[in-house]
Amino acid sequence: MITKEQTNVEAQAIQAKKASKTLSILTTEEKNKALHAIADQIEANWEEILKANELDLIKGREAGYEEAFMDRLSLTKERVSEFANGLREVASLDDPTGIVQSDWTLDNGLQVQKVTVPLGVIGMIYEARPNVTVDATGLALKSGNSIVLKGGSSAIESNKKIVEVMKEGLLNTRIPKDAIQFIASTDRKATNALFTMKEHIDVLIPRGGGSLIQAVVNNATVPVLETGVGNCHIYIDESAEVDQAISILMNAKTDRPAVCNAVETVIVHETWLNAHKEALIQALQENGISVHGDKLAVEAIPGATEAKEADWAEEYLSKHIAVKVVADVIEAIEHIEVYGTKHSEAIISEDLQNVDLFMKLVDAAALYHNASTRFTDGGALGFGAEIGISTQKLHARGPMGLPALTTIKFQMKGTGQVR
Amino acid sequence: MITKEQTNVEAQAIQAKKASKTLSILTTEEKNKALHAIADQIEANWEEILKANELDLIKGREAGYEEAFMDRLSLTKERVSEFANGLREVASLDDPTGIVQSDWTLDNGLQVQKVTVPLGVIGMIYEARPNVTVDATGLALKSGNSIVLKGGSSAIESNKKIVEVMKEGLLNTRIPKDAIQFIASTDRKATNALFTMKEHIDVLIPRGGGSLIQAVVNNATVPVLETGVGNCHIYIDESAEVDQAISILMNAKTDRPAVCNAVETVIVHETWLNAHKEALIQALQENGISVHGDKLAVEAIPGATEAKEADWAEEYLSKHIAVKVVADVIEAIEHIEVYGTKHSEAIISEDLQNVDLFMKLVDAAALYHNASTRFTDGGALGFGAEIGISTQKLHARGPMGLPALTTIKFQMKGTGQVR
Repeated sequence: MITKEQTNVEAQAIQAKKASKTLSILTTEEKNKALHAIADQIEANWEEILKANELDLIKGREAGYEEAFMDRLSLTKERVSEFANGLREVASLDDPTGIVQSDWTLDNGLQVQKVTVPLGVIGMIYEARPNVTVDATGLALKSGNSIVLKGGSSAIESNKKIVEVMKEGLLNTRIPKDAIQFIASTDRKATNALFTMKEHIDVLIPRGGGSLIQAVVNNATVPVLETGVGNCHIYIDESAEVDQAISILMNAKTDRPAVCNAVETVIVHETWLNAHKEALIQALQENGISVHGDKLAVEAIPGATEAKEADWAEEYLSKHIAVKVVADVIEAIEHIEVYGTKHSEAIISEDLQNVDLFMKLVDAAALYHNASTRFTDGGALGFGAEIGISTQKLHARGPMGLPALTTIKFQMKGTGQVR
Repeated sequence: MITKEQTNVEAQAIQAKKASKTLSILTTEEKNKALHAIADQIEANWEEILKANELDLIKGREAGYEEAFMDRLSLTKERVSEFANGLREVASLDDPTGIVQSDWTLDNGLQVQKVTVPLGVIGMIYEARPNVTVDATGLALKSGNSIVLKGGSSAIESNKKIVEVMKEGLLNTRIPKDAIQFIASTDRKATNALFTMKEHIDVLIPRGGGSLIQAVVNNATVPVLETGVGNCHIYIDESAEVDQAISILMNAKTDRPAVCNAVETVIVHETWLNAHKEALIQALQENGISVHGDKLAVEAIPGATEAKEADWAEEYLSKHIAVKVVADVIEAIEHIEVYGTKHSEAIISEDLQNVDLFMKLVDAAALYHNASTRFTDGGALGFGAEIGISTQKLHARGPMGLPALTTIKFQMKGTGQVR
């Protein structure tokens, strides 16, 4: 049965597709002008946006959401300005479309060009944070794509207002306002309707918790760019320098525990643990970290509780850590093979042979030698902005900037060539 | 309920995954040696292979398969030698892995490298042709991937023998024989089991007819590289040169009508048709092409039957063609938007503005100006070999050579960097 939600969502997706055609032939300058216009409009309407945000906050307090959640949801004049500046930054980035990746001429004279072009329509399915509404729209438009936004219901009033303001911003620009579509229905059927709209939507990008991402991956026939669940490991090898190992581990665990590139399990070489356990215990205690360890870890670390099978797969996103003790780098690699999510994995070691094995055999988007996993981030790596961090292998892997929102066309120019 | 087929297929996929780890650390030379060893083994065992093939041919004749099908199925000593030479050619191509696509150093000294690596395990689901068994295996191994092969049941004896011989060929090489897995069960459940094995299989590549491809696309949670259904169009613009237009059209229709880059619909500008209909009619008749036209086409072309709605979407793969008459390039583009399969589309025109619109607005892997659609082919474009032609937009689009079978890793080397 076709529901009202499906019909509405389809109508919006069709509008987005139509607008994407206009978008695809605009110049870089025209797109940049539009991004600046949206940015200005957002800044000019900060009070309106905060008013709408207040409605979400009232609902959120009534629902008793946690503090961290409310913090991500709540906007201020400064945060709204950051949204606008984010758009201006995206405007300043290189246009990822129209780039000739390679060109050659066949013996018969046929000229072949492989050129980057927009994907078309991007479907963004995300949870609470209203900044995603602005960031994703900026990246989509800059790369010549329309966007269909489906945000979480807890930010619905903020998102609705932000989208309204962004569309107003497009009024005197060459980008049609239909290039931004916001799905206002909070019915799950509205989200599900996006999953199979292959004709109108070119790619779905889910951003949020594991269950949201799995729902999209398992049910969508539209191609998906899978983002972000990070069960990241740091392996401390026998030869690791103590201070370096502990400094990296503490940074990766405590700098921002709730993000996907934070470490969740530390794998420690048995010999290293025996030699340096005092320093490790002290650092864990000073930073208030709760340890879930295997048998050897529990014996070595006071206050550690025994890890259950589920702990090895857990993305704690808080000051908890699982500790596994191993006999060598191969055992560490095998543990990561079983429990890792192919996001970011680090080895701390002075043994270059072990480092080489780790780099080659661990299957993940980002591998680190003697550095914190926290660098897996478009901003930190100098991409300028990111639409998410891909944990899949096709199309884009790791932090995804503007190029991830493009595809290619082979353009052939001939003078009557036949085979 | 878990069936016996699922269990067996999973066991094979796990073996393939394990072998892929060994494969991923081999040198280019080691991989090339193994490809040559397989090639030699295939050539040495041509009689065995033909004997197995004869069993398939007997079954095929009993089942009353068409001649074209039997032709694709049947092997000769020469064809078997071509298989071997194909493998030697793949050995001669550049290794697509280990290529540093970009590298840079952050201000804090962290060195970042974006390096190409194998995907891991490739699941190949294909129909009758036994050459795919060899070609796909060669491309997978060269790019450092294991392969799980699921061929059509009509070629089962040929494929089984070919795989057996290829595995024998690996005996004294560094590639483990488990890197090649052949699913011998002809139960559909065995194929379906591959669809959801995300842990063990990194990508599925379906090659064959539309229904096979759709079954994979609609049911797989493993990422899919969608290949090949081509409902290709040639648009003959008002300004098209007559001889060129007709020569290109006839080539695209008659050179090899059964392949995906053959043309299925010609869209003709009304004015051009009125001016040049005699030449067009003569060419169609001389080449024995049956026409399914819209109203104007039926009026203009003797013997044409009226096209049904289904004709516009039909991949005839034979000497039939649909003919649509339009008033301008925009109408042509809109027709392709509705019925095209994003494969190969051509415009024959001397009007560069119309050409530009066509190139920008038509959403397809390959766009042609004044040339035949038949060039959408890895061999013809100089890729050396292809695993299929992608009609999707993510990861790889158009003919897919060795690089399509790789992904990237970010490899970071630090000296204790934290955020």
